[in-house]
Amino acid sequence: MSAPRVDLNSDVGESFGRWELGDDEQVLQVVTSANVACGFHAGDASTLRRCCETAARHGVVVGAQVGYRDLAGFGRRFVDYDATELADEVTYQIGALEALARVAGTRVAYVKPHGALYNATVHHDEQARAVVAAVKAYDASLPLLGLPGSRLLAAAEEAGLRTVREAFADRAYTPEGTLVSRREAGAVLTDPAEVATRVVRLATEGTLVASDGSTVRVEADSVCVHGDSPGAVEMAVAVREALAAQGVRLEAFA
Amino acid sequence: MSAPRVDLNSDVGESFGRWELGDDEQVLQVVTSANVACGFHAGDASTLRRCCETAARHGVVVGAQVGYRDLAGFGRRFVDYDATELADEVTYQIGALEALARVAGTRVAYVKPHGALYNATVHHDEQARAVVAAVKAYDASLPLLGLPGSRLLAAAEEAGLRTVREAFADRAYTPEGTLVSRREAGAVLTDPAEVATRVVRLATEGTLVASDGSTVRVEADSVCVHGDSPGAVEMAVAVREALAAQGVRLEAFA
Amino acid sequence: MSAPRVDLNSDVGESFGRWELGDDEQVLQVVTSANVACGFHAGDASTLRRCCETAARHGVVVGAQVGYRDLAGFGRRFVDYDATELADEVTYQIGALEALARVAGTRVAYVKPHGALYNATVHHDEQARAVVAAVKAYDASLPLLGLPGSRLLAAAEEAGLRTVREAFADRAYTPEGTLVSRREAGAVLTDPAEVATRVVRLATEGTLVASDGSTVRVEADSVCVHGDSPGAVEMAVAVREALAAQGVRLEAFA
Amino acid sequence: MSAPRVDLNSDVGESFGRWELGDDEQVLQVVTSANVACGFHAGDASTLRRCCETAARHGVVVGAQVGYRDLAGFGRRFVDYDATELADEVTYQIGALEALARVAGTRVAYVKPHGALYNATVHHDEQARAVVAAVKAYDASLPLLGLPGSRLLAAAEEAGLRTVREAFADRAYTPEGTLVSRREAGAVLTDPAEVATRVVRLATEGTLVASDGSTVRVEADSVCVHGDSPGAVEMAVAVREALAAQGVRLEAFA
Repeated sequence: MSAPRVDLNSDVGESFGRWELGDDEQVLQVVTSANVACGFHAGDASTLRRCCETAARHGVVVGAQVGYRDLAGFGRRFVDYDATELADEVTYQIGALEALARVAGTRVAYVKPHGALYNATVHHDEQARAVVAAVKAYDASLPLLGLPGSRLLAAAEEAGLRTVREAFADRAYTPEGTLVSRREAGAVLTDPAEVATRVVRLATEGTLVASDGSTVRVEADSVCVHGDSPGAVEMAVAVREALAAQGVRLEAFA
Repeated sequence: MSAPRVDLNSDVGESFGRWELGDDEQVLQVVTSANVACGFHAGDASTLRRCCETAARHGVVVGAQVGYRDLAGFGRRFVDYDATELADEVTYQIGALEALARVAGTRVAYVKPHGALYNATVHHDEQARAVVAAVKAYDASLPLLGLPGSRLLAAAEEAGLRTVREAFADRAYTPEGTLVSRREAGAVLTDPAEVATRVVRLATEGTLVASDGSTVRVEADSVCVHGDSPGAVEMAVAVREALAAQGVRLEAFA
Repeated sequence: MSAPRVDLNSDVGESFGRWELGDDEQVLQVVTSANVACGFHAGDASTLRRCCETAARHGVVVGAQVGYRDLAGFGRRFVDYDATELADEVTYQIGALEALARVAGTRVAYVKPHGALYNATVHHDEQARAVVAAVKAYDASLPLLGLPGSRLLAAAEEAGLRTVREAFADRAYTPEGTLVSRREAGAVLTDPAEVATRVVRLATEGTLVASDGSTVRVEADSVCVHGDSPGAVEMAVAVREALAAQGVRLEAFA
Repeated sequence: MSAPRVDLNSDVGESFGRWELGDDEQVLQVVTSANVACGFHAGDASTLRRCCETAARHGVVVGAQVGYRDLAGFGRRFVDYDATELADEVTYQIGALEALARVAGTRVAYVKPHGALYNATVHHDEQARAVVAAVKAYDASLPLLGLPGSRLLAAAEEAGLRTVREAFADRAYTPEGTLVSRREAGAVLTDPAEVATRVVRLATEGTLVASDGSTVRVEADSVCVHGDSPGAVEMAVAVREALAAQGVRLEAFA
């Protein structure tokens, strides 16, 4: 019987010019997959190239974190795109990051929507299909990373793309296995030890303790951790160490 | 003895969202090489993808027209970039266009700097080297299109890249074979018949009539024509027809 | 008995750098109120200043056409703004235009939301209140131009701001006095003579012929005409001439 | 005999959306004049409004820190603007900040160019005149804050504008009273106590110790301190306390 395995992913490359965000160097020593911004919600070209170099140095797989064209809103506001324009902008972003990844000695190995685009494509069929269409047309071998049950992963499957199901280390889950809304108290977990324990259980048993104390089955190929604050990095380290201590193999899905 | 050959290039893909510029559909029926904008000085993603599709349909070769990040100035103002940032932004732009070209069934086959970056890299060694370094690191088989005698082409040659020398159909030349400054009267030629005659002579004999009436030798592998006004398109058509009438073969250099 | 009066308004100042849009010079000889863009959906600073100068020269009143920060989408895509950020960006835009208007010898005399913000504030209470709050805090004497029945005008009235009701010269109306959706055939009228006749009737009798042939009462203080194509300018001229021929006085509301 | 007086100024309002920069709340408890960004090199509208509110609460005078339109470069790269466009963009920025300042209960009381525009207008006559022309046309009572001996202050004086001479707390000076180039070792001072001592001497005696140990006369109405790092804030506090201890009155110039 083989050891349980899991992928840890995190958002990186989100600095922009003079403005620094997150500690990419540290995060890339913790995760196995890096969702690198592509310049539309964050990420200047030099940040992206350096981020890819660091990822390559640490053996971390690079994914394109595509977002809305909205630096001022950090890609966190829904924008009612025309589907064709969205697809073309997704293609543009993947290609831009691909070139910088190539120069850095690596390549784009998957795609994950960012922020409001991630949230929109859970339910918004047209935007989900636009993202999927762009990925398929560009390179049908690229997996899409997203929320289980989302329109995004459904559309990707329909299109014959590989899908990767994501869970969130620091989020509470309902008894139905969906995320507790951020508007509710207790939606975001802050204790590194508790979070680490949950991720270990998720990786070894495929279950989480839901917000009502019941046990819920959550299928996840990759677990998202954060790195945009000192506390976030500390939590990511705790998760990694707990997984290692329990014999879970950290391995990129791509 | 083989027939004389020449490439005609023109800037396309310079619309942006609601704002249309130039008649790409017409221009792409005239030229053999298309300098497609990459989104930094002009060109939204859908415009670029459609432009690549049209180019592919007409057998026109696609080049990446990389520029400064300056939509408000259309890339026509010198910006004193850090060399590393410039190189990374050039890489970003080439990759973005490459992805859209791939989706459109074609590929980026050369690189040409746009506007103020074109002008800067005639003399500005650091920026010239930055552009060359970006192209070389991304794909050392991509030729650079530029002004004969420019730092850009010199740096490209030093780096082992293929260079393509460009002449301008509608510009007056000095007896030394350089462009007459736009600030001088008569620097820009407007008569389609005269321009067509000059381009034919350039293609067949390698010479132009300079501003003082003397004959000057100008080595050019590609001739730039414009398409951003009805008059410009008309001139490009006149050039193409005159070349055909004189048995000059129109052929992309890439 | 005094002569009937009406205001004609149109969007201007929507060029951006190299990209020209509309014929502001012509439009400003036709209308009495100019909705000048403020740089977020369109309009570079020099365009705006020149536009204000032309408006001042022709005695046309200047309004601030505030929009979403979305040059690529021309402000035509809904963006799910935080209300406070929207209010602050509206203030920013009004102030920016006010400064250019001042330098041009005029001032901002009213506010009209643009594109998707105009459409959103018909129903979106939070965005409507954000726009109103910004105007009230900046200068409570500025009227808001908008659609009768919109949340925008309702919120403006509740806040004690003056409201100005707008009708559209080239749009079909339902028997209930609302706009026929653009998705339906016949929603947009294109015959200048027909449009001119409708506007005259609107100005003199306060009625329009609805899409089912019935007569519908429409209260309007200002009629919107377009200027972004040669045909649009021709229609605006036809409207103005028809109004003059019927003795309707063209007069800015502000 | 009246007590010596000096103004302390610092750059604030340089966050942008998700990206935070500097500790405006702390800095605005130290300085007497706040150079508030205007959105072109940094500063979203909500940041600027909040910054003006904080300044108003602490009795700090607000100035418009106008810059090049270059978020990616933070306004630190020279851009070869057309003079008219630069003037119009300066007007736009002052007006935008003025509106937010008004809503925050204060007003724009002076203008200071930012970054590369500050550096350019030391020598670049055309850009210096453009900034001055914009300020004069908008409000001829607004002082310009700049480097003694700069073209900016010379052009401002020629235009009849009030000028305010600035010194830098943490910069070494040549025996001629100009700034030691940042490229030279020792150009930037980092010891808070040393810097505080220098500023006290500057405020009380009008002299500084130059880089060669000699004493140099430096006329300054305002001293620039920084706030974009914890160390910078600490230095600014040290300067303020040293001035107070020596009986120097801190007072805004405007």
